[in-house]
Amino acid sequence: MLGNTFGRMFRVSACGESYGDALVAIIDGCPAGLEISDEYVQKELDARRPGTSPLDSPRKETDQVHIFAGMRDGFTTGAPLGLIIYNVDRHDIHVKQYFDVKDMVRPGHAEYTYMIKYGKYADWCGAGRASGRETCMRVAAGAVAKKILEQQGIKVLGYVKECMGISARKLTFEDIEKNYRANMINCPDDEAAKKMIDRVLEIKDEGDTAGGIVEVIARGVPAGLGEPVFDKLNATIAHGLMSIGAVKGVEFGAGFAVGSMKGSECNDIPYVGDDGKVHFRTNRAGGIEGGISNGEEIVVRVAVKPTATISIDQDTVNMAKMENTKLEAITRRDPTITARLVAVAESMVRITLLDHLMMWRGYDSVQTFEHPW
Amino acid sequence: MLGNTFGRMFRVSACGESYGDALVAIIDGCPAGLEISDEYVQKELDARRPGTSPLDSPRKETDQVHIFAGMRDGFTTGAPLGLIIYNVDRHDIHVKQYFDVKDMVRPGHAEYTYMIKYGKYADWCGAGRASGRETCMRVAAGAVAKKILEQQGIKVLGYVKECMGISARKLTFEDIEKNYRANMINCPDDEAAKKMIDRVLEIKDEGDTAGGIVEVIARGVPAGLGEPVFDKLNATIAHGLMSIGAVKGVEFGAGFAVGSMKGSECNDIPYVGDDGKVHFRTNRAGGIEGGISNGEEIVVRVAVKPTATISIDQDTVNMAKMENTKLEAITRRDPTITARLVAVAESMVRITLLDHLMMWRGYDSVQTFEHPW
Amino acid sequence: MLGNTFGRMFRVSACGESYGDALVAIIDGCPAGLEISDEYVQKELDARRPGTSPLDSPRKETDQVHIFAGMRDGFTTGAPLGLIIYNVDRHDIHVKQYFDVKDMVRPGHAEYTYMIKYGKYADWCGAGRASGRETCMRVAAGAVAKKILEQQGIKVLGYVKECMGISARKLTFEDIEKNYRANMINCPDDEAAKKMIDRVLEIKDEGDTAGGIVEVIARGVPAGLGEPVFDKLNATIAHGLMSIGAVKGVEFGAGFAVGSMKGSECNDIPYVGDDGKVHFRTNRAGGIEGGISNGEEIVVRVAVKPTATISIDQDTVNMAKMENTKLEAITRRDPTITARLVAVAESMVRITLLDHLMMWRGYDSVQTFEHPW
Amino acid sequence: MLGNTFGRMFRVSACGESYGDALVAIIDGCPAGLEISDEYVQKELDARRPGTSPLDSPRKETDQVHIFAGMRDGFTTGAPLGLIIYNVDRHDIHVKQYFDVKDMVRPGHAEYTYMIKYGKYADWCGAGRASGRETCMRVAAGAVAKKILEQQGIKVLGYVKECMGISARKLTFEDIEKNYRANMINCPDDEAAKKMIDRVLEIKDEGDTAGGIVEVIARGVPAGLGEPVFDKLNATIAHGLMSIGAVKGVEFGAGFAVGSMKGSECNDIPYVGDDGKVHFRTNRAGGIEGGISNGEEIVVRVAVKPTATISIDQDTVNMAKMENTKLEAITRRDPTITARLVAVAESMVRITLLDHLMMWRGYDSVQTFEHPW
Repeated sequence: MLGNTFGRMFRVSACGESYGDALVAIIDGCPAGLEISDEYVQKELDARRPGTSPLDSPRKETDQVHIFAGMRDGFTTGAPLGLIIYNVDRHDIHVKQYFDVKDMVRPGHAEYTYMIKYGKYADWCGAGRASGRETCMRVAAGAVAKKILEQQGIKVLGYVKECMGISARKLTFEDIEKNYRANMINCPDDEAAKKMIDRVLEIKDEGDTAGGIVEVIARGVPAGLGEPVFDKLNATIAHGLMSIGAVKGVEFGAGFAVGSMKGSECNDIPYVGDDGKVHFRTNRAGGIEGGISNGEEIVVRVAVKPTATISIDQDTVNMAKMENTKLEAITRRDPTITARLVAVAESMVRITLLDHLMMWRGYDSVQTFEHPW
Repeated sequence: MLGNTFGRMFRVSACGESYGDALVAIIDGCPAGLEISDEYVQKELDARRPGTSPLDSPRKETDQVHIFAGMRDGFTTGAPLGLIIYNVDRHDIHVKQYFDVKDMVRPGHAEYTYMIKYGKYADWCGAGRASGRETCMRVAAGAVAKKILEQQGIKVLGYVKECMGISARKLTFEDIEKNYRANMINCPDDEAAKKMIDRVLEIKDEGDTAGGIVEVIARGVPAGLGEPVFDKLNATIAHGLMSIGAVKGVEFGAGFAVGSMKGSECNDIPYVGDDGKVHFRTNRAGGIEGGISNGEEIVVRVAVKPTATISIDQDTVNMAKMENTKLEAITRRDPTITARLVAVAESMVRITLLDHLMMWRGYDSVQTFEHPW
Repeated sequence: MLGNTFGRMFRVSACGESYGDALVAIIDGCPAGLEISDEYVQKELDARRPGTSPLDSPRKETDQVHIFAGMRDGFTTGAPLGLIIYNVDRHDIHVKQYFDVKDMVRPGHAEYTYMIKYGKYADWCGAGRASGRETCMRVAAGAVAKKILEQQGIKVLGYVKECMGISARKLTFEDIEKNYRANMINCPDDEAAKKMIDRVLEIKDEGDTAGGIVEVIARGVPAGLGEPVFDKLNATIAHGLMSIGAVKGVEFGAGFAVGSMKGSECNDIPYVGDDGKVHFRTNRAGGIEGGISNGEEIVVRVAVKPTATISIDQDTVNMAKMENTKLEAITRRDPTITARLVAVAESMVRITLLDHLMMWRGYDSVQTFEHPW
Repeated sequence: MLGNTFGRMFRVSACGESYGDALVAIIDGCPAGLEISDEYVQKELDARRPGTSPLDSPRKETDQVHIFAGMRDGFTTGAPLGLIIYNVDRHDIHVKQYFDVKDMVRPGHAEYTYMIKYGKYADWCGAGRASGRETCMRVAAGAVAKKILEQQGIKVLGYVKECMGISARKLTFEDIEKNYRANMINCPDDEAAKKMIDRVLEIKDEGDTAGGIVEVIARGVPAGLGEPVFDKLNATIAHGLMSIGAVKGVEFGAGFAVGSMKGSECNDIPYVGDDGKVHFRTNRAGGIEGGISNGEEIVVRVAVKPTATISIDQDTVNMAKMENTKLEAITRRDPTITARLVAVAESMVRITLLDHLMMWRGYDSVQTFEHPW
């Protein structure tokens, strides 16, 4: 495995498994003098923590984070931050449950590919590194990025836009902010949220799980972020979001709808506003043009697949015996992870935006010319 | 700008603008002993070349590529490959046309963001580095990757799956291969292709342009490619595809449809086939599970926005005067770039697959254990 | 700070300070199926541990390492390894000692540059991240690399070649191996070692400290490692070695002596040996030609400066008051770190060799031709 | 080969061989608005150009550079710079000469290692990518870095400090600047230079070649550059310098002499100068402490081996026949490359300094605190 570091300038490296001792992230590139605390990071972690609602897995992880390196007297020192979360809810009974099915391919999970790639050495317990538990460290690192971005006037918010065909009404950034994380499905449109929750609980009762669509909006991003050609802002945000386990699609602005649009319908028309600055009449581009932020809100959506673990028997393969068999219904599971994924998606967007901000400032600052903004 | 290198092991660096002297790519990490020629690379380039059909821009670029470094007697030497394409169709009349509108924001183009990021130094001619011309070098590098992948039994094919609401029928890999690049819209379903072409020409007559959706399928990819957590195979493929100028969305397998699916509908069920190997009854995962290829076909789709340049007057802003104005209709343009984008998308998938293959082989080969495949 | 990751394929990221809670390393790119244990890593750590001889600092750190991630049942799983060492010897009395001189520049230390770079936020306790304690994690990661290299038949050994003008006699690899780590100065020539130790103890009594020269030899490195042009094997080894705090110079083979040599004196003459293979009559190149290993022993030396902390009063500056002042003699210190640095230098060579092996195998394996070896 | 890119933020990728069509460098991360020209870059290239003195190879390369991408109207646009040099002096007679000895290992050259690594596909003509010709592109890229550094008040100068045992007297930065590039050996001490030249010409008459030592000094580097732990300023400068073909050693400040120094002799004592700033009474550290620049001059030396090509018969191996044989004297060669290497070493230092400046500015600028300088 070789993909456990993300970012070039604000650089997150992580390790840890579902049933290992602990999860750790090292954040390199964090500037000195940032006031941050375990509590600040904890607040973000609590937003993705399981076991807090009937929509989540009943696994009880406290996810208590501690910054064990890179700090002195409440401020970052410039040294890399080290963050650690100990796994606490890993009792023998759960380990045994996983051991009993360790040769079975759990459909929709990464077992098969891990078995193929790592052979009999693949971690068979609780999905190992492929478990959603690793996303703790994305959120922890995202919290550090959030703190820095806030000082730069950049806000990133996510919410569940759609779940099993039920869509939130069109929401502005203000709408989202006002009703942020207000219900267990993380949809600021309370009416739609109620329908979504009812639908998920219905599906839960069937022993099944539900997918959804999460939208993340970033406001206050200065025009100019993004490194063409290959590291366009949308390309690296897509990289980060698509690296979240359950994500199967990423789209910006008008997204897949552009496939049926004419140029005259798709182009965002600029105009000089009363403030003497350029604005756009529409935002089909999702705030990014030519791979560079244009000052409008960055709007990105991800498709979240339904939790693979279901409470229904499934056909599968026993890899040790190489024979077809049945995998019995599993009860400990998330009816949907869409709501919890919001915090993870926000985090990846934050980390990526900050990384780009640092890259841009890096070279831009050595050659001073008058920027027209 | 800092994003002109792609890949960690098979590493492409590129430069060059729409109206500069030449485009160059340096390919590092190419093994020695590969038999390749200018002609082989040219064949792929011809598939994205403009001016060959009424759906394309009339710009006449021959796109003649020459491998000027890294070769001896028809074989690669292990030294980095250098590939060059000189721009030939850049006459004074065109330069003047661009000069005349150099302070105007062309809606849907990268002008505004480049002006903001690079100030008055941004290249005003033909979109500069933001022009689609840079994709030549993606295709050239993709051709080198193709040659290597072929020897590994990996085939990557793309086609236009949808255009302005008209969809190709469900196509197998064999269908696509049989009718590959057979018509000017690059849709192997001739019937749908005809409708698409008619629709695009209609839109062209309106002075407008058309979007579409391209699907790329990779067959023969061994199970095991992909580096969790952050560099999952889907994440890096998404990075590469989303870095193509006109792409606004990327999805794998069932894609955005997973948002309305239950777990029991979404999970791909494995079984032991007659060949004694594991297969899956469906491919909603698009060939990637847990960020690692599972041996099934990799299926990815990208949303391509309509060409921004249209033959209709548009409101816009003159950045020098900071006032609202009109941009006149432009005649030299692609009615749709969807068909030409196929070769570019295939190339990004090829480059990424090869990069992953090298990464995996790199560490896997230093620790030999019996792989179960 | 942005330099806490080393390696491209075998990739070590680290964090932790002298007086922080713990030091952690994340090792990405470690193959699955490697049998390794805390004990194996501990053995290497014990070779750099302070407080074991009168030549070391009396600081009592047990340096107990634990691999907390990436393992299952004694084997690596392919997931990144996480290694942790808790700092234990950090009592209030020591913290207070550092607090009392926190505004003073300690000559020869990194305080001044850290104060300038990180301002008042720089960690003032025990040199923070600039302390030699971080080298624990180099050694821990080096132990993992050692285990893998051993299976490839590659052995890396270091020793103190020179100390305060006293040189070891010319030693073969066998000599070093036979008397490896046999005395407290880590010089396999017992006679020279005795003189070195006496000299260092003499200097210690003066309240002063001693420099030295460490040589590292790698045997069994296959010809072919190294990535020209910029990532030559010697260039990346030099990078790794020069990144060790006290190192002021790195040289390969004949090293600085080449400045007074003629070509006819410097060139290593090849010949076909009785085994039908190419050997060289001399090894002035230090086993690397054109940035690529040539199959001979890799021989590299580093110059280690005397410990900066001395038991003699020194003139210095109080940065808070910006005035000249005196820094009093400090008693807790290493009379020389040359002996302890051996393990660190070996580790950096091991990590770099393994990284190159993986890079080479990565691309070499996708294009099979008959290698002439 | 996978090492043809250098730098993280100011990033140089290069390709091209001794007897290929051309050498190209792509420079990514160059800010927009930099005024630069072919002529400016050419001036630096002329300083390393062969055939200008009796100390050089008689190969007549004009080394005419052209910036073919990334420019508009004399200023950089922010797009990556593309620089090209066509090889002109590669006549059939020379190619034939190389062909005739293509199976012979030329002692001291990279042939053997390239043959082993790349097999029969290794470029046999004029050392291919391993030729010193690649250093053109280091110098071209270094010229761009020079232009940017100048605006930041940073000057980097190199000179030949020692040649065949003859040393220049102690020279200040002003001495070097005053007599910079004033003689054919690039030693600003004219008296020593004369002796060096006489000695090299004597050795040339013997058919032999001469080594030397080059020192590079950087003045005006602000305190604060360098990224601990692994990317210390000295570590990355050493990486860059050691990647130059003929370099066998790198040392900073007191360098290898520290091995015989006591702490009290080695520590640089700081004091508050009349300007109210901190200075150091000595510079044994070579301007870098803890991997970070301290504001003093950065002083680094490299050991340059004598040219491997000599005009004396040498024993060697014919790899095709795998038998011992003789390599005849070769007349076309550099009596010493030490003088020409100065420009290359300066360039690597410049590129590295600029890269660090951009990295530092990148993260430092997102967290504003009052720096004490």
